[in-house]
Amino acid sequence: MANSRFEYVKDFEQPDVLLPNTWIVVRIDGRGFHKLSDHYAFIKPNDRRALDLMNAAAVEVMKELPDLCIAYGVSDEYSFVFHPSCQLFERRNAKLVTTIVSTFTAHYIYLWSTYFPSKPLHPPYLPSFDGRAVIYPSTRILRDYMSWRQVDCHINNLYNTTFWTMVQQGGMSNTDAEQELKGTVSADKNEILFKRFGINYNNEEEIYKKGSVLYRQYELEEPKQAPASKEDEVSLPEAQQSRSQQDKLKKLRRKAQVVVDHVDIIKDDFWERRPWILSGRPGRLPVQS
Amino acid sequence: MANSRFEYVKDFEQPDVLLPNTWIVVRIDGRGFHKLSDHYAFIKPNDRRALDLMNAAAVEVMKELPDLCIAYGVSDEYSFVFHPSCQLFERRNAKLVTTIVSTFTAHYIYLWSTYFPSKPLHPPYLPSFDGRAVIYPSTRILRDYMSWRQVDCHINNLYNTTFWTMVQQGGMSNTDAEQELKGTVSADKNEILFKRFGINYNNEEEIYKKGSVLYRQYELEEPKQAPASKEDEVSLPEAQQSRSQQDKLKKLRRKAQVVVDHVDIIKDDFWERRPWILSGRPGRLPVQS
Amino acid sequence: MANSRFEYVKDFEQPDVLLPNTWIVVRIDGRGFHKLSDHYAFIKPNDRRALDLMNAAAVEVMKELPDLCIAYGVSDEYSFVFHPSCQLFERRNAKLVTTIVSTFTAHYIYLWSTYFPSKPLHPPYLPSFDGRAVIYPSTRILRDYMSWRQVDCHINNLYNTTFWTMVQQGGMSNTDAEQELKGTVSADKNEILFKRFGINYNNEEEIYKKGSVLYRQYELEEPKQAPASKEDEVSLPEAQQSRSQQDKLKKLRRKAQVVVDHVDIIKDDFWERRPWILSGRPGRLPVQS
Amino acid sequence: MANSRFEYVKDFEQPDVLLPNTWIVVRIDGRGFHKLSDHYAFIKPNDRRALDLMNAAAVEVMKELPDLCIAYGVSDEYSFVFHPSCQLFERRNAKLVTTIVSTFTAHYIYLWSTYFPSKPLHPPYLPSFDGRAVIYPSTRILRDYMSWRQVDCHINNLYNTTFWTMVQQGGMSNTDAEQELKGTVSADKNEILFKRFGINYNNEEEIYKKGSVLYRQYELEEPKQAPASKEDEVSLPEAQQSRSQQDKLKKLRRKAQVVVDHVDIIKDDFWERRPWILSGRPGRLPVQS
Repeated sequence: MANSRFEYVKDFEQPDVLLPNTWIVVRIDGRGFHKLSDHYAFIKPNDRRALDLMNAAAVEVMKELPDLCIAYGVSDEYSFVFHPSCQLFERRNAKLVTTIVSTFTAHYIYLWSTYFPSKPLHPPYLPSFDGRAVIYPSTRILRDYMSWRQVDCHINNLYNTTFWTMVQQGGMSNTDAEQELKGTVSADKNEILFKRFGINYNNEEEIYKKGSVLYRQYELEEPKQAPASKEDEVSLPEAQQSRSQQDKLKKLRRKAQVVVDHVDIIKDDFWERRPWILSGRPGRLPVQS
Repeated sequence: MANSRFEYVKDFEQPDVLLPNTWIVVRIDGRGFHKLSDHYAFIKPNDRRALDLMNAAAVEVMKELPDLCIAYGVSDEYSFVFHPSCQLFERRNAKLVTTIVSTFTAHYIYLWSTYFPSKPLHPPYLPSFDGRAVIYPSTRILRDYMSWRQVDCHINNLYNTTFWTMVQQGGMSNTDAEQELKGTVSADKNEILFKRFGINYNNEEEIYKKGSVLYRQYELEEPKQAPASKEDEVSLPEAQQSRSQQDKLKKLRRKAQVVVDHVDIIKDDFWERRPWILSGRPGRLPVQS
Repeated sequence: MANSRFEYVKDFEQPDVLLPNTWIVVRIDGRGFHKLSDHYAFIKPNDRRALDLMNAAAVEVMKELPDLCIAYGVSDEYSFVFHPSCQLFERRNAKLVTTIVSTFTAHYIYLWSTYFPSKPLHPPYLPSFDGRAVIYPSTRILRDYMSWRQVDCHINNLYNTTFWTMVQQGGMSNTDAEQELKGTVSADKNEILFKRFGINYNNEEEIYKKGSVLYRQYELEEPKQAPASKEDEVSLPEAQQSRSQQDKLKKLRRKAQVVVDHVDIIKDDFWERRPWILSGRPGRLPVQS
Repeated sequence: MANSRFEYVKDFEQPDVLLPNTWIVVRIDGRGFHKLSDHYAFIKPNDRRALDLMNAAAVEVMKELPDLCIAYGVSDEYSFVFHPSCQLFERRNAKLVTTIVSTFTAHYIYLWSTYFPSKPLHPPYLPSFDGRAVIYPSTRILRDYMSWRQVDCHINNLYNTTFWTMVQQGGMSNTDAEQELKGTVSADKNEILFKRFGINYNNEEEIYKKGSVLYRQYELEEPKQAPASKEDEVSLPEAQQSRSQQDKLKKLRRKAQVVVDHVDIIKDDFWERRPWILSGRPGRLPVQS
C-alpha cells in the first residue's frame, strides 16, 4: 500500500521561518494558574517554592538549549531569548516555541514533588503552559523588552505585597483593600506598607522585587567606555558564522554554569559586565576556587 | 515607576490567527524518541506500554479540550483535529499548538510511572514533544490527511515487524536484515513473515497495524445514502454559530466518553457511522446499560 | 567583483505561498478616486465612461490571465477570482496581486483617452490602484463574498441615486440631502425617488444596479437538479491535475470570449447555468452564427 | 437589502503588517521585458531612453511617497526603500507594494510616448511590473542589500557590454559570443573589450556601470569621524515619533528635490555625506543659486 495518493496533503504545511538576524523571545505563561495556585494553596503574595520550581525548570531549558543566551522569569511567566545569530531548527517558529514549552512543562511536572512534597499533583489540576515567539530587530528593543518585563514585575509585586498585607495583617476584606488601592501610585503603596505595617518595601526579597534572570556564568568584565560599538557587532549577518563555528560556540556554552540572579537588568551595568549575553560570544570561564 | 516607556515593545507581537472555516490539525512528535526509547529499553518493534501511555495522555488532552473532534496516534506522534467551526483562543496558532503540546507533555510525564513502574524517569532523559498546526480547507482533504497517517502507520509497522522478526527470531544482524528488506514491497514482507516465521501479519494486533483513533462516543448511526450533503453542512460559516450555541455544544461534548479505537479510518464507513465527527454536532449519548 | 559577499541578503525574502485548494480573490481599489473623479469631473452618481473604462481594463486582465475564472466590478473597485486549482506563480501572494494591479493600471492609463477623449490625463492626477489577496476555503464562502460585493453595489447605488437626484433635480444642498437620508431604509429611498421625482429605481440601468460581472463565455447549460454535487467536485485536490492538463485547460480558456454582464450573481441560477466558472473546467464554445 | 448576512466574509482577510522598526524594500521588476524590449526594439546592451523612462517613473513615485528615503534602479528593476520609522498605511505589506507598483506603472505608461515618441504602445505589449516587499532588521544589512544590487548591475553590465560588442562590432553569432564568455572573470572581459575593440570599460557611461540612485537633495555634509553612532539613532523605536512629528517630516521631505545620481553606493562615503538617508531626518535645503 503506497502512500503517494495522500502525500499531497503535505503541501498544506506552510513555512514559518523567523526573520534572520533578529532577537527571538519565546515567552511562556502558566495556563489557568490563578485557579491552580488556589487549588494547591500557594502562599500569597509570593510562594517561594513555586518561584524556585519555575526557576529550576527554566535552568533545565537553558541547559538543554545552549542557543539560549538569557531568560527572565516572574510569577508564572518566563521569557527565553535566542540570539540573532541563532540557527536552531532553521529558526522555525513552531519548533522553537513548542520545544521550549514542552521541555519546560516536562521539568516542571517532574520537579513538582521536590518543591511541593506534601502536595501531590493530580488531574485535572496538572500545570501546563502556553507560549509564543516574538522577534525584535535590534538590541535596543530587546533590552526594552526585558525592561518591560522587569518593570511589570515591580509594579505587580508592589501592588500584591500591599494588597495582601492589608488583607492578611490588616484584616481588610479583599474588596476593601482593592477599593482603597484603586488609583494609588507607588509612593502611596510604599506609605501604606510603612506607616500602617512598618514594612519597608526596599527590604523585601530581591527575587520578589526583581524577578529572576538566568544566564551562563563567565568572568565579569569591566564596563567599556564605548558600549555602542558592542551593539554594532551583534548585527553581523549570521551568514558569516559557519556551521562549525556555531557548533564550537554551542560546546563552549554548554560548559558554562547557568546561574539564577535577581538583579536590575534595566540599567546598562548588568549588560556591560556580561558582554557575552548580547554579543553571543562566550566569555572566559571563571577560575574554579 | 510607570511601564509606558517600554510598552511599545508589544507592537512587535504579530497576529497568527488561522484562516476561519478550515480544519486545524495539530500534530505533535516525540523529541529524540529514538534515543529515549533505547535509554528506557522500549520493546521492539512495538512497546505496548509506550503506546498505551501515548493514548492515555491523548485522552486527557481530548477531555481538557472539548473543541477537539478526533485524534489519531501512531508511534510517538499524535494528530489532534479541531473542527472548521472551532473558535478556541480565537484560532490563534501559537495558543492552540502550545496548549496541546504542553497539556500532552504534562500528562505523559505525570502518567509515566503508571505505565513504566520499574523505570523511573530521570533527566536529561525527560520526554518532550514538538508540534505544529496545519490547516486544511475541505473535509475531503482532512480525510486524506488522516488516511495519509494511517497508511504511514501500516507501512512502518509492516517494515518494523518484519525487520525485528528477522533480527530477534531469525538471528540476523541489523545490517543484514536492513539490506535484505531494501527494495521489497508489502507482499515480499508478508511472505518473509509467513514463510520463514509462520507469522500471518493480519493476525498482528490492531493497535499496531491501525494505530489509535480517539473520538467522543455517541450512538452509531446507519450510513446515509447521500453522505455528500453531510460534508456540505460542514462548510457552514462559523459566523452563524453564536457564542452561546458554541458553549452549549462544548458542554454536550464534555459529557461524551472519549474512546480509543483501532480501526480503519480510510474507508467511508468509519465516518458515516460517526457523523458527529465531521459535522461538529454531538450525536445521541449511548443509553447506559 | 563577485557578489557572494552580499548574497546573504536574499535569505530575508520570506515565502508567501497561499494555502492550496482555496479560492483566491484579488480585490483592487482606486487610490484617491474621490479627488480624482472631482478633478476630471466624473458625472454623478454614475459616470458611464468611467465604468466602461474599468470594465475594459478588467477584460484585458482576464485575457492576459486565463487562470482567472470570474471578476466583479463596481465603482472604482474590482475583484478578480482564481480557482482553487490555480497554480499560477506557484500561488505566490505578492506575484499574483502585483501582476493584476499593474496590468490593470497599465490598461486603464492606456485606454483612458478612448473613454475620456476630451480630458487628457496629467500628473499628479494619474489614476492608480492598490490591491490585496484574500483566500476562501469553500465555494459557498466564495459565493457569499461575491454576494457581499453585489449587495454593497446595490446599497451604495440606491443611496447615491437618491442623494444626487435630491441634489441635482430637487435643488437640495448636499448637507440637507445627507441629513434627510440619514437612517432611511431602502423602501424610504425608493419612495423619495418615485413620489418626488417620478423615478422608478427598478428602471435604472442594470450596470448601475448590479455592477459588472466578467467571465468566459461558453454555451449556457440547464440548471442541474442536484447542484450540491457540483460544488463537491471543486474541492478536488489540485495535485490531481498534472502540469500538461493545466496547460491544456489554459489554452481552452484563452479561446473563450470574455463577456461583461450585469446580472444577479447572488441567486443560484447564474452559477448553475455557467457551471464552468465554479468547476474550473471549460464548457462548450458557442457555435458561431 | 441589508448586507449583514454576507459580511462575515471580511473575517477571511488576514493582517499583513510588516515588523516595526525594520527597513522595508519594495523591489519591482518588469514583467516579460525580454520579449517587450525585442518588440519595441530597445537598443542593446543599454537603451538610454528605456533607462531614462524607468528613472522618470521612479522619480514620480518618490515624489508621491515622501516616506521613501532612497531608490535604486538597474535595467527593468527598481528598489524603493522605506525607513524603519515609516508608518505609511500602518506598514501593511500589500498596500505598500501595490501602491508602488501601480504608481510606477501609471507613470511608465503615461511617460512612454515622451521617451519613445516613434514607438507607440499597443496591446498586448503593454509594460507591467510585479513587486514584493522584504524587510531588513539593521542598517548594515540594508546597505548590503543596496550593494548587492549595485554589484549585480556591474556584473551584468560588464557581461552585456562585452557580449554585444563581440556580436555587434565583432560580427560573432550570439551563440559563439556566449560560448566564449562562459567561465570568464571580469579581467577577461575587460581584456576582450580593450584588446579587440579598443574599449576601456571604465570610460563607459556611469548610468550603465553604476545604475541609478534616487534620493532627496539636501546640502552634503562632511563625513563624520564616528559614523557608528549615526546608525544607532536609526534604530530608535518609531513609537517615539508622534503623528504630528511624522507629518512635519513628511512636509520637509516634499520640499526637497529628488535627484538621479549614478554613483558608488557600496562605500561609506555616499552615505556619510548624505546622512539624512539613513537617519530619516531631512537635512538642510541647498541654498538656491
